[in-house]
Amino acid sequence: MTLYLKLAEFISSRIEQGLYGPGERLPSVRTLSCEHGVSLTTVQQAYRVLECSGLAIPRPKSGYFVPADRRVAPLPQMGRPILRPVEISQWDMVQELMRFDQSVATIQLGCGMPDVTAPTLKPLMTAMARISRRIDSSSLHYNHLQGVLALREQIARLAIDSGCLLTPTEIIVTNGCQEALSTAIRAVCVPGDIVAIASPSYHGMMQILKAADLKALEIPTDPVTGINIEALEMALEQWPIKAIQLTANCNNPLGYIMPDERKRKLIRLAQRFDLPIIEDDIYGDLSHRYPRPLSLKSFDEDNRVLLCSSFSKTVAPGLRVGWIAPGRYLPQVLHMKYIGSGTTATQPQLAIAEFIAKGHYLLHLRRMRKQYKRNCDLMIEWINRYFPTGTRVSQPQGGFALWVELPEEFDTYTLNRLLEAHDVQVANGNIFSAAGKYRHCLRLNFANPPTRKIEMAVLRVGQTISQLMQLDSPAER
Amino acid sequence: MTLYLKLAEFISSRIEQGLYGPGERLPSVRTLSCEHGVSLTTVQQAYRVLECSGLAIPRPKSGYFVPADRRVAPLPQMGRPILRPVEISQWDMVQELMRFDQSVATIQLGCGMPDVTAPTLKPLMTAMARISRRIDSSSLHYNHLQGVLALREQIARLAIDSGCLLTPTEIIVTNGCQEALSTAIRAVCVPGDIVAIASPSYHGMMQILKAADLKALEIPTDPVTGINIEALEMALEQWPIKAIQLTANCNNPLGYIMPDERKRKLIRLAQRFDLPIIEDDIYGDLSHRYPRPLSLKSFDEDNRVLLCSSFSKTVAPGLRVGWIAPGRYLPQVLHMKYIGSGTTATQPQLAIAEFIAKGHYLLHLRRMRKQYKRNCDLMIEWINRYFPTGTRVSQPQGGFALWVELPEEFDTYTLNRLLEAHDVQVANGNIFSAAGKYRHCLRLNFANPPTRKIEMAVLRVGQTISQLMQLDSPAER
Repeated sequence: MTLYLKLAEFISSRIEQGLYGPGERLPSVRTLSCEHGVSLTTVQQAYRVLECSGLAIPRPKSGYFVPADRRVAPLPQMGRPILRPVEISQWDMVQELMRFDQSVATIQLGCGMPDVTAPTLKPLMTAMARISRRIDSSSLHYNHLQGVLALREQIARLAIDSGCLLTPTEIIVTNGCQEALSTAIRAVCVPGDIVAIASPSYHGMMQILKAADLKALEIPTDPVTGINIEALEMALEQWPIKAIQLTANCNNPLGYIMPDERKRKLIRLAQRFDLPIIEDDIYGDLSHRYPRPLSLKSFDEDNRVLLCSSFSKTVAPGLRVGWIAPGRYLPQVLHMKYIGSGTTATQPQLAIAEFIAKGHYLLHLRRMRKQYKRNCDLMIEWINRYFPTGTRVSQPQGGFALWVELPEEFDTYTLNRLLEAHDVQVANGNIFSAAGKYRHCLRLNFANPPTRKIEMAVLRVGQTISQLMQLDSPAER
Repeated sequence: MTLYLKLAEFISSRIEQGLYGPGERLPSVRTLSCEHGVSLTTVQQAYRVLECSGLAIPRPKSGYFVPADRRVAPLPQMGRPILRPVEISQWDMVQELMRFDQSVATIQLGCGMPDVTAPTLKPLMTAMARISRRIDSSSLHYNHLQGVLALREQIARLAIDSGCLLTPTEIIVTNGCQEALSTAIRAVCVPGDIVAIASPSYHGMMQILKAADLKALEIPTDPVTGINIEALEMALEQWPIKAIQLTANCNNPLGYIMPDERKRKLIRLAQRFDLPIIEDDIYGDLSHRYPRPLSLKSFDEDNRVLLCSSFSKTVAPGLRVGWIAPGRYLPQVLHMKYIGSGTTATQPQLAIAEFIAKGHYLLHLRRMRKQYKRNCDLMIEWINRYFPTGTRVSQPQGGFALWVELPEEFDTYTLNRLLEAHDVQVANGNIFSAAGKYRHCLRLNFANPPTRKIEMAVLRVGQTISQLMQLDSPAER
């Protein structure tokens, strides 16, 4: 990186951190030149870069200033879901989202794809190649229905970080977290049952409920502390709910981490109503702060939590290696696993086991945690800059997705239609609601290293939103 | 291989082929010595080998003879299942079968494992290693929900051999055939429905019915021509059956291939009652004769057949790559696939696509077809030799499993308990019946290259059966 770009990055990070607020004066060219031991021209070049990206404004004879209208979007509001059990809709919209995943040309801000280009993943590929070359062809055999033992041992080891003491016999390897969640639901519910979920909630989970002929009761959820315990308690008193499903850590799509005290309360509630909790911890290891948060399962005293997770977000989704620690429901989950797909592919399991055992997993996590945190800050910055006034945005504590809330009359369906022409795609908010609410919200992925192309895509989304908002309210203008 | 062993194999193959019948005189030592240009000692050594394995008996001054009591076991009888819909039992027994798969020491005659040690599989491992080394890490991404296009193209190409014209868009790649069958059932049935199946029938399929809360109606099935069409017709008239599920080609466990005329009749029946047919073709490519038989799907005029298959038996089960061509039910199956496990692991798909595209698949098939046919003949021979009178055995036209029927009072459960001490295991017949019938039957795998160790295992099974039969009927002796 050239000197002036380095300097520009340094100044912009100070602005992002709030060291220089909106309207404030930035250090003079001379000061920076002295401080950093670079030429005046270099500093001027750096400022021109900042000017172009809208972070600095030159005022004749006064130097550079942070734009006074630099806005910081507030947090999304707590959702107001329908307070009765509903059947799940939105399969067509989910399909639409997945259809996009195919096109390489499209900037897929809507998908749940991690960055798989990091160099810290290289040992994984090496492990896979090595396993393929092994002569005993052990990876061609059926393996244990619960999964390769070496991998289950590593999963048990990692689980300690989330406060869980698990043995390999308590773990079942699955085809991604989707199969973990799917077998969990099928193990504890029968058609017609009601499941309590957070709102908004992961669309894949809701489609599982739909397929199993279950109803969802969406519980109001705080964008910082998670599912509202009091509202959940009321719902449990009012409806014959059979299971609670949620993502307490690094929630998808809101990004919150439930405070431990609330986790404890939730477990107590489940005990009082004698309900299983299906915990989706797929993003748990990607908490932006270290050490990672405790899982709900770590507070579980009587084996009622079915902990579901996966290496799809932390390592790579294409390997399809997830797992479930189903507690007391292990026999039922194992049957469902056998029914659904039999054993799990051997080779990816062996490769991930080796990747973890040799310490590469923790190294990779460390890198990704930092990258996602950095990308998150930048993406919020871009939204502040490019999205219209009235935009609200989540403050994720983990993972790589942002939840953006627009004025209520907005419809992201039309937005995606228009964005298609620009080869950009976002995730419509309504797939995160059982009843198709949150049409005015969208989810943005910030996993990939931020490039000018991605920034332009965000700008394009912001511009298109502004256009649509102007179209929608001609009378007001 | 030494000269005398070569010669012994030559003579024994002639005996197996029936060139020398029971009680007949075998060629003299002098004749063979001249014919094969080997020493008299070599021929005598060869005959001693045959003597040890019970294929030749020396008579003083007369030479060697085929044992007069060489029996040929008759075919199994047509099953007499319960002629009303039943709930499926036997999950505990299936688990028992799978538990054994773990132990390397045990000779697993009961499992459904193909031979994965063939050298023709080597290009597959090479492909997997190469794909792992690719820098673009494309195998780490989520791929299309229907599966990698390159693989679906190859599957469509191969399907022509079974008489099917499929396009890649009509195919969904799955986690093995188990997921294909499982999504198929969930796509066409709702809890409480009745499904007509052959009897005996693949245990994994029946567990799917159990998990989906469906009932099975077992239809009497001929060990040579397959499901009895007339009995099926009667059942369809009598009961509100919602789907027909069967394996028309290289049936598991009976090994039959339904004649084309019967396949046609079956399709017409399904049309008349407007029912979907779920066809399991997993062993279809392993027909012992070439070209392979036509699939039911090839007779399907109105897209009512959901064709399920896999590379688990033809290539390797540890890859977990199967597929389904669900005809008119594609949207429902796709939803179920998304719900059950999301996308399928990318790397094994790419490897198999390459394996097929480069012609290695057909080469491998050619080898395995011959090997399985040879092993089959030998296994039948061993059963004729080592199992007690009254044993009936199937005559498979494909695949690598034999169905053995013992006298009706026999119980294979006790058999397996006793065999455990000898590190041998067979598949109990009752897991192939929804209602737990066929306790007097067992399934034997003959995929692996025949070794003395396997022969001794078969001998041990035969001996243990004989012992149990003597214990069971002391009054008759």
